[in-house]
Amino acid sequence: MPLPSASNSLTVRIKYQNKVGNLAKLAQAIADAGGSVGSMDVVESDSKLMVRDIVIDCFDTKHQNKIIETIKGLQSVEVVSVSDRTFEMHQGGKIEVTSKAPLVSRDDLSMAYTPGVARISTAVAEDPIKAFALTIRQNCVAVVSDGSAVLGLGDIGPLGAMPVMEGKAMLFKEFGKVDAFPICLSVNDPKGIIDAVKAIAPTFGGINLEDIAAPKCFEVEETLRAELDIPVFHDDQHGTAAVVLAALYNALKIVDKDISAIKVVVLGAGAAGVACSKALMGAGVRNVILCDRAGTIYKGRKEGMNPAKEWLAENTNPEGVKGTPQDALKGADLFLGVSGPGLLKGEDLKVMARDAVLFTLSNPTPEIMPEEAAPYARIIATGRSDYPNQINNVLCFPGLFRGLLDCASRKVDQNMIIAASKAIADVIKPEELSEDYIIPSVFNAQVAPAVAKAVREVAQKAGYAREVPKVTGI
Amino acid sequence: MPLPSASNSLTVRIKYQNKVGNLAKLAQAIADAGGSVGSMDVVESDSKLMVRDIVIDCFDTKHQNKIIETIKGLQSVEVVSVSDRTFEMHQGGKIEVTSKAPLVSRDDLSMAYTPGVARISTAVAEDPIKAFALTIRQNCVAVVSDGSAVLGLGDIGPLGAMPVMEGKAMLFKEFGKVDAFPICLSVNDPKGIIDAVKAIAPTFGGINLEDIAAPKCFEVEETLRAELDIPVFHDDQHGTAAVVLAALYNALKIVDKDISAIKVVVLGAGAAGVACSKALMGAGVRNVILCDRAGTIYKGRKEGMNPAKEWLAENTNPEGVKGTPQDALKGADLFLGVSGPGLLKGEDLKVMARDAVLFTLSNPTPEIMPEEAAPYARIIATGRSDYPNQINNVLCFPGLFRGLLDCASRKVDQNMIIAASKAIADVIKPEELSEDYIIPSVFNAQVAPAVAKAVREVAQKAGYAREVPKVTGI
Repeated sequence: MPLPSASNSLTVRIKYQNKVGNLAKLAQAIADAGGSVGSMDVVESDSKLMVRDIVIDCFDTKHQNKIIETIKGLQSVEVVSVSDRTFEMHQGGKIEVTSKAPLVSRDDLSMAYTPGVARISTAVAEDPIKAFALTIRQNCVAVVSDGSAVLGLGDIGPLGAMPVMEGKAMLFKEFGKVDAFPICLSVNDPKGIIDAVKAIAPTFGGINLEDIAAPKCFEVEETLRAELDIPVFHDDQHGTAAVVLAALYNALKIVDKDISAIKVVVLGAGAAGVACSKALMGAGVRNVILCDRAGTIYKGRKEGMNPAKEWLAENTNPEGVKGTPQDALKGADLFLGVSGPGLLKGEDLKVMARDAVLFTLSNPTPEIMPEEAAPYARIIATGRSDYPNQINNVLCFPGLFRGLLDCASRKVDQNMIIAASKAIADVIKPEELSEDYIIPSVFNAQVAPAVAKAVREVAQKAGYAREVPKVTGI
Repeated sequence: MPLPSASNSLTVRIKYQNKVGNLAKLAQAIADAGGSVGSMDVVESDSKLMVRDIVIDCFDTKHQNKIIETIKGLQSVEVVSVSDRTFEMHQGGKIEVTSKAPLVSRDDLSMAYTPGVARISTAVAEDPIKAFALTIRQNCVAVVSDGSAVLGLGDIGPLGAMPVMEGKAMLFKEFGKVDAFPICLSVNDPKGIIDAVKAIAPTFGGINLEDIAAPKCFEVEETLRAELDIPVFHDDQHGTAAVVLAALYNALKIVDKDISAIKVVVLGAGAAGVACSKALMGAGVRNVILCDRAGTIYKGRKEGMNPAKEWLAENTNPEGVKGTPQDALKGADLFLGVSGPGLLKGEDLKVMARDAVLFTLSNPTPEIMPEEAAPYARIIATGRSDYPNQINNVLCFPGLFRGLLDCASRKVDQNMIIAASKAIADVIKPEELSEDYIIPSVFNAQVAPAVAKAVREVAQKAGYAREVPKVTGI
């Protein structure tokens, strides 16, 4: 049974006779139905009646309804209203656009808008680098999606993608102090996406591509990186890769293996699988085998190929292993799952090397549940917050873009991604490391500044950083 | 000589011996140089020394430098630092993207982002109208420009346009509680603009086109209006038209003329001139003559035509007047200038009808300065804040979009623009009306709600309004 969580929680307003025992009865009934009671705020109370808002974590929509029916069935309690806390939080959208300066007098208007703004526009038009001093470009990232591969939901289109991209914008602000704005596209062919992003690029200092399906995401990203002078980052690829690599660095310290000597099996050859494999190789891994629905990817394979997989066939699987993921796992040190729920069994892992490491990232249901994998692995990480070692992209992208924007970088590249992963890994001190703590918490405030600093240093060394003049008008 | 204004103001930090008379000397020197002293905050003070930040309004950049040199030349005062207040206000851009809900716990994350957001995305994907309940689409407008006709600066490109579009976003929020986001485009051909706006449309509940040159602005707007299911509004056209019409309604009450009987001469056949003419005709004006650089536009004219002007040639100038603007002005009741500075002389106006009305909107320098026009006109309005009767688009667009978004309108049309103009005019009560008060102040808080209400009512009657369900998830 899944755990009750805030993501499926209710606020139930109830009214009852203010008598000893009534609240206890209610709490017991909710507990019996599997609900987890949180806050129980008093809304109104007198000697006779009590009105409370009770927060109840459930595990899915069906469970929510069961809980509501359970409470309605109680004699002692009247249900006044019920709301789903997640839907409540999303009412009217989750972000807003606000002014950094007040606009309350004619003087304010004449500086922020006409006629004063004409001098600012002229300064920027005459020297475009000044846009990084005098406009939001200096701190602004577009979160772009066509909605073709949203979470585990698939191709749900741009409107369905909006709540996710708004959430991403919140994370950018909260963790990186970056102003991010969702741009959900009505076009979904590579050329359409590329043209739209190029068209809107002057507004932004960086582009975060999100939830765009493979293999088109590769073409979109490569073309935009080549044609724009601001960094273009596909988070599903490189954000995941950076955090996976961070977790691997720390895992290898525990199992005491050298990165160049390990064998890695990657299940899933979509955006994340391809990018993680490239990043692992960039970090020194020599033996990577990818598997997709058709089995291992090897040189000469004909079935289900695309340009990205052709590259993998040429450059991975040095021993040319053919067969199933289970075949590939023989002697593997790391299993990385970026595919779908429940694709592995515990016994599949028996053939792995000593001190096997599992990153089983399919979310919310991993390739194999940690409980089932535990007997066969020394270290296990998932994408979930309710197990140890959560591999969560939010550890990377806010700090990464913070660093890129802070130096008005023209590009983001593999070296920056590796630098980001090392910075994330190094937030955990050697003496703190353990099998259950190889990756910092998403709320660890040291992470984003450390990532930003590391990324900025690489940008400066690589010559991608731009010198932004101070523009005072005097 | 132009007036000193906040748009060209300085903050000068000065240090001087804390003795009677030193401050007076400084103030006198600034006054002698034509500067206007505002606040004089004390930064530091002891028995010997005084440090102050002095705000000084100047009239242009050259004047700013003259003032600085004047102060530097004083024996009694040391200049510590100087800053241009307008450049200061624009440092880093003027808007930001903020979260409407906190993100400080795992529970917050699980509702705003994964896994909870998946339920919201699914709900929206299954029923797209729910995007108007659960995403920022319900309150969000794109302020789109290619930077091809920015203020009076001309084609300065998308980066130069950014400070203006950010300012516009501030006005949207301040006056209409609308979340507006600037989108400055690297494409500037009509098809490129149209494709880009269509691509990003799912994010927004409305599109405000801004500072796009005529005649391409007409094609862009018409195509987008036909192909999108959200309102598309070109503010330079229809925003100006709405406020001009509002001013005209009130002016006609004072001069006691019927709108169907007046003769109007419009100087300038760009975006604003064309749109104002159409709106005037939509409101009942029968005799409109437009003039451009080649003189009056009449049926059969060959010189300097485009599709918009062809339409004007067919549908305006019923008497077929040929010649200069001066020729056209004979017997005119209203002169509307939407062209360039200083194109008219006082004596040109002698031939107008009794109680002539002038809207001379070229900004910052009108077609004719009010002082020069005064002997020949009963009512004068300009685009400037330092004369009576300022015709400012901010009276229209925030309230207009507020009304459109409040009913999730699919369209904006001429009837709404006329309704908006009547609402603006009616904010001034009949007993308050005077030659110097035909249009409300931009800070009149009654304007936006009145416009919003009027626009929403037309949208509902016309069937453009959408019914947005309440989506609670329960």
